[in-house]
Amino acid sequence: MRKSKKVQDSYVIMTELVLPNDTNTLHNLMGGRMMHWMDIVSAISAQRHSNRIVVTASVDNVSFSESIKLGNVVTLEAKVTRAFNSSMEVHIVVYAEDIPSGKKVMSNQAFFTFVAVDQLGNPIDVPEAIPETEEEIKLYDGALRRRQLRLVLAGRMKPTEAKELKSIFEIKEDAQGIDKV
Amino acid sequence: MRKSKKVQDSYVIMTELVLPNDTNTLHNLMGGRMMHWMDIVSAISAQRHSNRIVVTASVDNVSFSESIKLGNVVTLEAKVTRAFNSSMEVHIVVYAEDIPSGKKVMSNQAFFTFVAVDQLGNPIDVPEAIPETEEEIKLYDGALRRRQLRLVLAGRMKPTEAKELKSIFEIKEDAQGIDKV
Amino acid sequence: MRKSKKVQDSYVIMTELVLPNDTNTLHNLMGGRMMHWMDIVSAISAQRHSNRIVVTASVDNVSFSESIKLGNVVTLEAKVTRAFNSSMEVHIVVYAEDIPSGKKVMSNQAFFTFVAVDQLGNPIDVPEAIPETEEEIKLYDGALRRRQLRLVLAGRMKPTEAKELKSIFEIKEDAQGIDKV
Amino acid sequence: MRKSKKVQDSYVIMTELVLPNDTNTLHNLMGGRMMHWMDIVSAISAQRHSNRIVVTASVDNVSFSESIKLGNVVTLEAKVTRAFNSSMEVHIVVYAEDIPSGKKVMSNQAFFTFVAVDQLGNPIDVPEAIPETEEEIKLYDGALRRRQLRLVLAGRMKPTEAKELKSIFEIKEDAQGIDKV
Amino acid sequence: MRKSKKVQDSYVIMTELVLPNDTNTLHNLMGGRMMHWMDIVSAISAQRHSNRIVVTASVDNVSFSESIKLGNVVTLEAKVTRAFNSSMEVHIVVYAEDIPSGKKVMSNQAFFTFVAVDQLGNPIDVPEAIPETEEEIKLYDGALRRRQLRLVLAGRMKPTEAKELKSIFEIKEDAQGIDKV
Amino acid sequence: MRKSKKVQDSYVIMTELVLPNDTNTLHNLMGGRMMHWMDIVSAISAQRHSNRIVVTASVDNVSFSESIKLGNVVTLEAKVTRAFNSSMEVHIVVYAEDIPSGKKVMSNQAFFTFVAVDQLGNPIDVPEAIPETEEEIKLYDGALRRRQLRLVLAGRMKPTEAKELKSIFEIKEDAQGIDKV
Repeated sequence: MRKSKKVQDSYVIMTELVLPNDTNTLHNLMGGRMMHWMDIVSAISAQRHSNRIVVTASVDNVSFSESIKLGNVVTLEAKVTRAFNSSMEVHIVVYAEDIPSGKKVMSNQAFFTFVAVDQLGNPIDVPEAIPETEEEIKLYDGALRRRQLRLVLAGRMKPTEAKELKSIFEIKEDAQGIDKV
Repeated sequence: MRKSKKVQDSYVIMTELVLPNDTNTLHNLMGGRMMHWMDIVSAISAQRHSNRIVVTASVDNVSFSESIKLGNVVTLEAKVTRAFNSSMEVHIVVYAEDIPSGKKVMSNQAFFTFVAVDQLGNPIDVPEAIPETEEEIKLYDGALRRRQLRLVLAGRMKPTEAKELKSIFEIKEDAQGIDKV
Repeated sequence: MRKSKKVQDSYVIMTELVLPNDTNTLHNLMGGRMMHWMDIVSAISAQRHSNRIVVTASVDNVSFSESIKLGNVVTLEAKVTRAFNSSMEVHIVVYAEDIPSGKKVMSNQAFFTFVAVDQLGNPIDVPEAIPETEEEIKLYDGALRRRQLRLVLAGRMKPTEAKELKSIFEIKEDAQGIDKV
Repeated sequence: MRKSKKVQDSYVIMTELVLPNDTNTLHNLMGGRMMHWMDIVSAISAQRHSNRIVVTASVDNVSFSESIKLGNVVTLEAKVTRAFNSSMEVHIVVYAEDIPSGKKVMSNQAFFTFVAVDQLGNPIDVPEAIPETEEEIKLYDGALRRRQLRLVLAGRMKPTEAKELKSIFEIKEDAQGIDKV
Repeated sequence: MRKSKKVQDSYVIMTELVLPNDTNTLHNLMGGRMMHWMDIVSAISAQRHSNRIVVTASVDNVSFSESIKLGNVVTLEAKVTRAFNSSMEVHIVVYAEDIPSGKKVMSNQAFFTFVAVDQLGNPIDVPEAIPETEEEIKLYDGALRRRQLRLVLAGRMKPTEAKELKSIFEIKEDAQGIDKV
Repeated sequence: MRKSKKVQDSYVIMTELVLPNDTNTLHNLMGGRMMHWMDIVSAISAQRHSNRIVVTASVDNVSFSESIKLGNVVTLEAKVTRAFNSSMEVHIVVYAEDIPSGKKVMSNQAFFTFVAVDQLGNPIDVPEAIPETEEEIKLYDGALRRRQLRLVLAGRMKPTEAKELKSIFEIKEDAQGIDKV
């Protein structure tokens, strides 16, 4: 029988200080640096879940609405939402915090997918991820739909086979639900 | 009347050598480092088009299928596909090249969106992007559809208003077409 | 009356992946890189407590007993233990985690002291730090003694004035107590 | 008979320019970056003495009194003070130099301890360090006392066994003596 | 018979954004950072020509006349000019582009020489480089003269044996010719 | 009357440890990284001489004959050889040291030229450099000849005006003399 692990066991918090080289000439954090941090925090989460080396398989649509300034504190929280054979979807929420005002806002969220590999780089099965809280269950349930969108966008699944995709438009409601958590 | 510029004028080539700190313990390029490079090359492309400071607004779904090794040469090519008021979509194609064998493969493609801003960080209109080649026209035509998907996924457009979205499933055919260019 | 804040509000978790450039030729994390991370995590903690820019004032004795390997995940947890006028003592605990085995050990702990400054770099008063848990209270109580040792070692207090210092030898018992938490 | 080497043979000078990424939002050098440099210069010193790979074993109390600005030149001077079986204590003195005024001040001093290891990471004996100048002899003599304080603080020596520790309060006089050299 | 490859096949374009840590306190790109980029782009060019690991053998006189600012876009173009047994001369032209004004100037040019090596680090023969355009032929023809100057300056050729060196003073005319291309 | 300073006052020693990201796939230090260090150490030397911000004006021919390995210690020594109005020539000698064997070799030498500038970036006169030792006088005397070669190579002096250039072929003897120092 396949092993399983709690979603909570893959929970990772990463905190970064926005330094000069992370910023553009307006002293705002560059999007690519943020993506770099997202990749590291979510890779660590997938490694904790699988106890394996992992490689990034895909990144879902990410939008950047808040500008994050030089000297801000950025907190990234990641956890595995669901595992499929050798792959794991990880959800990342990013907060930006302005020290003088103490104001902290959720600036981004993202879904990264990783594949666990052995020492030769071949895919290897990972434990199931068991959601427990209401939010974890919601993310677990949405993972199948996001996976089908990913496969369709990558040209690896025919739209007609993507049974979950008719509900794609509920994704945004999901996202809003998460924001409130 | 709004200014316009050729797509070709925003064309940028960036070449990077995969160094130790860019790799995981299997000596493969980490996805986040690639995203960081993608952001820089596409920001430069959007800056060339707009002659403005630009900020990353969104990143579309990116998939990573090839593993890129330590010492490989990575080439990123970016160009603006279409401009909408103050925003620009940029298409990035990434090639990985193994020096000893001379083998060069297309490893990824991505769409990043940027907003041009003035010195106070406020959005400012950019020139139209005029496509000329067959491939540029195809990317230009698909930009509206990708934009609607982006807005729906970010919860900023109702699915019922996304007229172009019924054709979303043709995206993969588009992508394949681009691969052959 | 002087403002106060809970110790818990200054709690920061930072997670780092040990990359090639962080390591020596035996592929072990270098001590200086660890100190660099300790400084950042504890500076963020002191910033959260004071809502001010902070500058490092001193670092207490740190010992390194565990070797941390390339690819390990390092977690640093910091919180303010006690505030004195414009200065804050921060306690940092460091854990090293080996992904394949899932083994996680406490590798180090340290005390860093920061001074809050205004925009001109002049010291400025900070809120009191209110300990709540048993461990927080223990750290709060020990802070005065550590401060006197620091001042004596820096040549800024005469040993005869250091009333708490006769109990200096209990520090190790304190440290062991913390390890067990 | 155990080999020996002069203290002078382990003498290392390192010079660094304070770059934007080394500084906080007040454009002052961050303490952690300084500790990182201290670790490298003293590790090189210990390697020169031992002709071995070395690992950081401990860092004694360091205090930061001077603020060092962006564009300043930082000079770090390190030398082994004394060797104990496989471990070496290294003394580091740091100077900060402001180019326009030509003003150069001693900003910090520190003691780092390293252990020499073989290719498997096991401790291995190092040569004795032979002090020659008055200052080298003073540092050599104080090394035993600092070592006992280190062991007591790390909980590895009972205070009652630390015979040298009754003289701990002379440390500050030592430190001032060094400043005057 | 010795293999040959077209000069054009070794052509590399690298684009870099000038970030804070690349600049001095006047916010100008530092020369050493530029040299670092020149070395990487020309090493990639020599690797493409030889399909081998290459090591830098020499750098010819480089002059810096333009100041390049923070936020500028730097484009480096490199191609092999000529191959001699295991060594290759690479020509690099550097452009600096100011985004707001759209002004792009040629800021530098340089010649770097590389040696192709095998896995043990021993020199190994490379294909001949076949120039095709008028500019490539001019650079090919001048390579012998530059090589002799290099050998004389390094003390590895007697001036009396450097037959091409009497024409050394035409180098500057060459350089101007290149500027106009 | 123009101010003057001793050559010795501009003497700078910089020590670097070769880290993974400084090396190619054979684990050898890349030439560009070395040039980067050379630029920093010589800029600091020129800053010490002039008490001004300096910008790199040119780099003379550099040759790389020794391969420097990961983990080696690199020492760079720089001093101003001669000043001309607002410009200074700096001589850099580089040593590479292998820790296990204790073997230390001179791996490179180079001449960098800097211009001192004011806060607006305009050239500003610097003190004369007064050589004292035999080696300093030799380097001072050769500076005029190297300067003329530099100007001719940059196309800023006609060969017929370069009176010192007929002695250009003595440069190599100079270089050998330095090696023996």
